[in-house]
Amino acid sequence: MTAVPASSLTDHACLIVHGEDRPGIVAAVSALITRNQGNIVAFDQYSDDPTGGAYFQRVVFHRPGLEGALPEIEADLAATLGGGFDLEWSITDQSTPKRMAILASKQDHCLLDLLWRHRRGDLPVTVPMVISNHTTSAEDVRSFGVPFFHVPSVSGPDKSASEERILELLDGNVDFVVLARYMQILSPEFLERLGVPVINIHHSFLPAFIGAEPYKKAKERGVKLIGATSHYVTGDLDEGPIIDQDTIRVTHADTVAELARRGADVERQVLSRAVLWHAQDRVIRHGNHTIVF
Amino acid sequence: MTAVPASSLTDHACLIVHGEDRPGIVAAVSALITRNQGNIVAFDQYSDDPTGGAYFQRVVFHRPGLEGALPEIEADLAATLGGGFDLEWSITDQSTPKRMAILASKQDHCLLDLLWRHRRGDLPVTVPMVISNHTTSAEDVRSFGVPFFHVPSVSGPDKSASEERILELLDGNVDFVVLARYMQILSPEFLERLGVPVINIHHSFLPAFIGAEPYKKAKERGVKLIGATSHYVTGDLDEGPIIDQDTIRVTHADTVAELARRGADVERQVLSRAVLWHAQDRVIRHGNHTIVF
Amino acid sequence: MTAVPASSLTDHACLIVHGEDRPGIVAAVSALITRNQGNIVAFDQYSDDPTGGAYFQRVVFHRPGLEGALPEIEADLAATLGGGFDLEWSITDQSTPKRMAILASKQDHCLLDLLWRHRRGDLPVTVPMVISNHTTSAEDVRSFGVPFFHVPSVSGPDKSASEERILELLDGNVDFVVLARYMQILSPEFLERLGVPVINIHHSFLPAFIGAEPYKKAKERGVKLIGATSHYVTGDLDEGPIIDQDTIRVTHADTVAELARRGADVERQVLSRAVLWHAQDRVIRHGNHTIVF
Amino acid sequence: MTAVPASSLTDHACLIVHGEDRPGIVAAVSALITRNQGNIVAFDQYSDDPTGGAYFQRVVFHRPGLEGALPEIEADLAATLGGGFDLEWSITDQSTPKRMAILASKQDHCLLDLLWRHRRGDLPVTVPMVISNHTTSAEDVRSFGVPFFHVPSVSGPDKSASEERILELLDGNVDFVVLARYMQILSPEFLERLGVPVINIHHSFLPAFIGAEPYKKAKERGVKLIGATSHYVTGDLDEGPIIDQDTIRVTHADTVAELARRGADVERQVLSRAVLWHAQDRVIRHGNHTIVF
Repeated sequence: MTAVPASSLTDHACLIVHGEDRPGIVAAVSALITRNQGNIVAFDQYSDDPTGGAYFQRVVFHRPGLEGALPEIEADLAATLGGGFDLEWSITDQSTPKRMAILASKQDHCLLDLLWRHRRGDLPVTVPMVISNHTTSAEDVRSFGVPFFHVPSVSGPDKSASEERILELLDGNVDFVVLARYMQILSPEFLERLGVPVINIHHSFLPAFIGAEPYKKAKERGVKLIGATSHYVTGDLDEGPIIDQDTIRVTHADTVAELARRGADVERQVLSRAVLWHAQDRVIRHGNHTIVF
Repeated sequence: MTAVPASSLTDHACLIVHGEDRPGIVAAVSALITRNQGNIVAFDQYSDDPTGGAYFQRVVFHRPGLEGALPEIEADLAATLGGGFDLEWSITDQSTPKRMAILASKQDHCLLDLLWRHRRGDLPVTVPMVISNHTTSAEDVRSFGVPFFHVPSVSGPDKSASEERILELLDGNVDFVVLARYMQILSPEFLERLGVPVINIHHSFLPAFIGAEPYKKAKERGVKLIGATSHYVTGDLDEGPIIDQDTIRVTHADTVAELARRGADVERQVLSRAVLWHAQDRVIRHGNHTIVF
Repeated sequence: MTAVPASSLTDHACLIVHGEDRPGIVAAVSALITRNQGNIVAFDQYSDDPTGGAYFQRVVFHRPGLEGALPEIEADLAATLGGGFDLEWSITDQSTPKRMAILASKQDHCLLDLLWRHRRGDLPVTVPMVISNHTTSAEDVRSFGVPFFHVPSVSGPDKSASEERILELLDGNVDFVVLARYMQILSPEFLERLGVPVINIHHSFLPAFIGAEPYKKAKERGVKLIGATSHYVTGDLDEGPIIDQDTIRVTHADTVAELARRGADVERQVLSRAVLWHAQDRVIRHGNHTIVF
Repeated sequence: MTAVPASSLTDHACLIVHGEDRPGIVAAVSALITRNQGNIVAFDQYSDDPTGGAYFQRVVFHRPGLEGALPEIEADLAATLGGGFDLEWSITDQSTPKRMAILASKQDHCLLDLLWRHRRGDLPVTVPMVISNHTTSAEDVRSFGVPFFHVPSVSGPDKSASEERILELLDGNVDFVVLARYMQILSPEFLERLGVPVINIHHSFLPAFIGAEPYKKAKERGVKLIGATSHYVTGDLDEGPIIDQDTIRVTHADTVAELARRGADVERQVLSRAVLWHAQDRVIRHGNHTIVF
């Protein structure tokens, strides 16, 4: 993985290319960037099978006056990659931070950690809003200068009402959503209508301990490790593509409360890494997998 | 956990006590050791609930002339702990290494690692034999001065025949058995007749990826960690009490073969730690859990 | 290490004993606790040489009505341990949290992390004040309900004036002091007059990269790890007894700014662990070493 | 870092390019590979400053009939990169394993680990010889089918005699040398005449505990971590470019012997990773730093 500063980058573009692998892709893409006066500062590629498998490429290049040149570069990309190669691509101006909404519940450690990292300048995003089904964090969130909206959870037939309210708030305002220990399951209809990526943090090393109360399940099984997993949310609970995971050692003497206390640190770190990498366009989804450059 | 040298210790006893927790156990045990001229060099205890839960204690003490004094100490223990406290206990002379048999298959990395650590003096055990269902490791094993027996695996109705042969070899000769990537499932009858603890290494972070081909399953799920778990073998496959676990980070670019290559290092370390701790009487089984002092 | 909940414990005492090792200490201490109606819930001991080396013991016991019984228990301890054994001891009521002052500078990640953990109930301390040589964190600190005092740093002959002002604020109000990336060197006179333990976080794996700008030095040396170290402060810069350390992997591509960003997470964790363990009376100083139970 | 199988690769070339960074390098190199009928399977680049800093590139490409085509490719490289770009380059046929000699002493854990990994097919090298200043490992080494030579160490004025003997054995027979806990300091003259890279494993996390007896020094300092460092050998003791490092947690209770026992595992892993990466042409030296792709 190539290191790129966390902060936004003026006149830098990130180009993501993926499709069927075949010879000459690197040469075609790098020639295109060169003839458009770009200088490559980061280049990563991966192919799951060089003889016709799936190919993934991430290129960051510097191009003075990027904003004005972007339409021309996009036209060149469409002509070059859409033709002989049949590749999909997307290009983003790295000086434009992604807009990240956070959904939270009572547990505030992941929420506050993201807000604090953002204030510190460690996450290249803007935070247009935090939505919670509890009011407990309202004052904290607003002290960071971030709008806070309370949308109470309802169960049963009214569930769609609260999802409707959340969709109204998010619609058009966000590029991705983070579930910072948001303990509600989002319906497939919600995810489809939302139309932007949703990142969740689950407090176990998936696929172990799917679902509710993973620390309690960990204690019952007697494991010597606990962990956390950040993943994209799909219709299948805790089954989406994994972005990052980590574990720490525990002992027989750790109570469920101790596991939760110590695990909170792992959750914060794993989630913040996933958010950073997503915000930097480092993560490419491929079926139920992720390529993380 | 208290550090005790891996090698055998002359005139040192290890006393394990467990039962219902109640006030005064530490005082009673330590007074007993003092009046039997022992000096405590390691002391660990754990109670899952100080108001009447399960209590576990491990004490290592030095007593010059231990061998001769042991019968008297055991009588004192029976009188002291069997009466008012209703505790179970066991005492072992740490100068007597446990006898460890290894069952192996074609994959030799865990097998050779244990033999190498043993030769180096890092495991306080003797190795009376290695039994394998393949002959590939015979020469390597014998070069360590360890007897090698080949018992081919058979499937179907004849399975009991190979288990019978293994039992004949082990009977009376071993204190515990290690399955060093032995890829056969042992029958409940075998385990019951064997009558000594059996330690297995499973090449995943349990409870994830139970059963066959965990590295393939890990690749399919797209996890960002792989791991290994050592546990006592019970009738339930990969469900026995866990002794130790560990994980390492992997990426999208690691093939199944790479996961297996890199995971082999984790397996070797996790298994060797479990064997060391078992050999040092540090591990107490309690239902499906372990207390590791 | 025995797990004890991070929160304060009613009717629990922590007894620390240390001195020359000799047979019978465990029996004497545990008999004393039993005859004073205490029930041992955690017991750890360490001897660097069972034949007359230095001995260290930490016992937590539950004793209903502890506050009233404490004078009698202390008298018993003085009679029992001061006589034949010549041991030093101290006993603390675990329901009384220690008072922790924090000294900080501009970098606020360790400061805010401690305040946040404290508010969450993860640190059994009170925080009577934060003192900083910059005003940047004043509003944040006060939002936690913690008093904030600004004492500007001065160099040269006036240095003693700012130390004098800090001493006036701390005098009689604190049980220990944490330097949360406080970038000033405290004079030996200050430390002596302060008279309570001071815990520092250094942003390298000591003894590597002592002194200023360790991340810059790490980059220059080309290390593949960075780390952090928490230690008690002595007159020798970065040479005090180490409480905890940790490292993370880095690569050639990490800039000094990236090292600082990523290292901040390690600093927060290592410092918070050291503070928790100190607050729980788990850390015993012995010369330039620590025993951490 | 891109994953490439540890084993040798038929018809795969590895091209290393480095020099002053300027726009168009990627385009020039990838166009060259494409016009020579190569298909890029791994591509990594790093620049310490995109506006004229040092640039490093590693490309692995598949080219059917590589051996016959290599002269033509090399001519093209000379014309393309030597001209306008002023870059240095080297190209290796990945089907030709590097020849690795091992120098060892009494401690055999790193030596045997490398031989075992090699036999297992995990290191793409050949091992033409092991040279030791003790005879203890002769039988073990030869059981792997590897020639063993005993060259006793001498101190004082005769030191050059043993180095002379080692040079005679190595001359022309090896591509790199590994010091697997070889406890002798090699003279600058030896290194210069040898003329191939030498990789050492030092049993501490450098730059801490340079020189002799690092585990003893670690115990004396009271660190809570121990580690190991693999680096290229230069004339300055333990100061050469670091390839890899790692640490593990230790406690006050670990004796120097325990530190050495537990550290041996870290040494084995860190050294074997460095050897693998060097053998795969993943490591580029740049002054006192390494770029590890």
